Amino acid sequence: MPDLRRDPIVGRWVIISTERNGRPHEFVHLQPARPISTALCPFCPGQERLTPKEIMAYRPQPAEPNAPNWTIRVVPNKFPALHVEGDMGREGVGLYDRMNGVGAHEVIIETPGHTEGLADMPAKKIEDVLWAYRDRIIDLKKDLRLRYILIFKNHGAAAGATLEHSHSQLIALPIVPTSVINEIEGCRAHYEQKERCMYCDILRQDLSDGGRIVAENPEFVCVTPFAPRFPFEMWILPKRHAGYFEESQKTQFEFLAPILSDCLRRMDKVLARPAYNFILHSSPLHERTGDFYHWHLEIIPKLTQVAGFEWGTGFYINPVSPEESAKYLRDAEL
Amino acid sequence: MPDLRRDPIVGRWVIISTERNGRPHEFVHLQPARPISTALCPFCPGQERLTPKEIMAYRPQPAEPNAPNWTIRVVPNKFPALHVEGDMGREGVGLYDRMNGVGAHEVIIETPGHTEGLADMPAKKIEDVLWAYRDRIIDLKKDLRLRYILIFKNHGAAAGATLEHSHSQLIALPIVPTSVINEIEGCRAHYEQKERCMYCDILRQDLSDGGRIVAENPEFVCVTPFAPRFPFEMWILPKRHAGYFEESQKTQFEFLAPILSDCLRRMDKVLARPAYNFILHSSPLHERTGDFYHWHLEIIPKLTQVAGFEWGTGFYINPVSPEESAKYLRDAEL
Repeated sequence: MPDLRRDPIVGRWVIISTERNGRPHEFVHLQPARPISTALCPFCPGQERLTPKEIMAYRPQPAEPNAPNWTIRVVPNKFPALHVEGDMGREGVGLYDRMNGVGAHEVIIETPGHTEGLADMPAKKIEDVLWAYRDRIIDLKKDLRLRYILIFKNHGAAAGATLEHSHSQLIALPIVPTSVINEIEGCRAHYEQKERCMYCDILRQDLSDGGRIVAENPEFVCVTPFAPRFPFEMWILPKRHAGYFEESQKTQFEFLAPILSDCLRRMDKVLARPAYNFILHSSPLHERTGDFYHWHLEIIPKLTQVAGFEWGTGFYINPVSPEESAKYLRDAEL
Repeated sequence: MPDLRRDPIVGRWVIISTERNGRPHEFVHLQPARPISTALCPFCPGQERLTPKEIMAYRPQPAEPNAPNWTIRVVPNKFPALHVEGDMGREGVGLYDRMNGVGAHEVIIETPGHTEGLADMPAKKIEDVLWAYRDRIIDLKKDLRLRYILIFKNHGAAAGATLEHSHSQLIALPIVPTSVINEIEGCRAHYEQKERCMYCDILRQDLSDGGRIVAENPEFVCVTPFAPRFPFEMWILPKRHAGYFEESQKTQFEFLAPILSDCLRRMDKVLARPAYNFILHSSPLHERTGDFYHWHLEIIPKLTQVAGFEWGTGFYINPVSPEESAKYLRDAEL
């Protein structure tokens, strides 16, 4: 009998329908991550002139901007979805609302190595990527027109990457997206009723239960959520309550980097290096939601085709239970 | 400057970012609809034994069930996401909620012709498909465990179809999916404030404005929505307020079939027969939302890759404005 499960935060129901389900290898290579282009890569050292002028870079030795010899480099997206300049132009058009696409769209080039993926890097290098995320959020937070910053990674063509050189993206928005509002409102309702953070309650239950734990260390835990939209979906959460990713302390990044590395390598092992997305979920910039909202990182391997049913309802059919996903991931030999 | 637009019903913002945009042919064949299998087709006449036993069929002459000589045939999905038998088994698991996957999952085989798509059929045949939808909803509505019925079509492999023989699907759910709740709540708030249906207001404004109209006839209109998630997304709505698809009168289906045919053919012409989904949005079965919710059909050609950003936020980047999509579709020579 399929299982219907409700996400306790946003109230979204999913069908866990494992009857068509086989072992992980049956999900493998629906659309594998693979080289997209062998053309001259704009993210490689020596090709800096092919990107817009850099916003920030980490270099072991001081050097001119846009010179090689960087370890991480942040540049504006060449085809930005939003523009930094301009006024908001908020207006109503009859019953509709619109505004200008003011915001920022940046690319975080994670490594000078063209073929080095995040899962291949030593944890210390991943820690620097996390610092780059933090530094960009703190800088953009000064712009009071911006209300939300989304950091995400598309890895592999099937997950939407158009360049294979490992990179993440940042989009800063003048509005808070509805699904973030839904998560926050779910947490707010729980907090108002119980004076506790919903994600903290989830962590307590899941750590005690154990069946959906993928990995943990003193500061972080990786779980498969109770009502996952996708097979092998994973969430990494700080164990201690924290609303804002960018307020993390140095020691926290020292624990986040290895667990992220560990989880990506488990996923690569079980699913044979799938395309994937990850998305950082953190509090809106200027709203005091930090008491009841708990930042986390969602990792979604791109294995299934999302069809009309999902678009029509936001109601997902997932062929693998999170307990089974977690077991495969936990048992992977690294 | 990209345009940020808000859907007036669910409050979802989208970016209309046309700077990377070219003409429609540039969207063509990202993943074309194509034959999936030449193996023995379970939906062809004479192969009736390859499906579960039929639930209903239209036949010009009376005949035994599961015999050939049908024009439309409805069968249970061979790999159902939900099962009709069983009790609900609603339970809490600590802070989580779950229930058994009780419901129905049916396939509406729209034609005996293996290669005939919905867009190839005469309007009269499409009308019969609409009657089949209606008949199944009315039958399933008697089961008081069911709270929502979703009818949708995946056409082409890229849109999630696993068999190429033209068919739609029906999923009857014991819950109302969250995105339907979001639409209904948006409409309820508008109605409480103004005593008017939000979609009726949209129709009035769009018909007067004209820029997003694709096609219309005395009973229906097809528009591109103001804040579309996807390029060339279309909504077909009854002009007169109606909350329940299944309460449509005969004359309404006589007008719905030709406008659906017309819009699919316009889409095929402009986008060179893309894969697509359509999803019927109608009121929940046993809640009196019909005063303020307005049923409609959403058509989504499958042209773009949905990446991490969209999953993370429910916030879409659309490279084509709905005014431009509507103009291309309106101007298509059929």
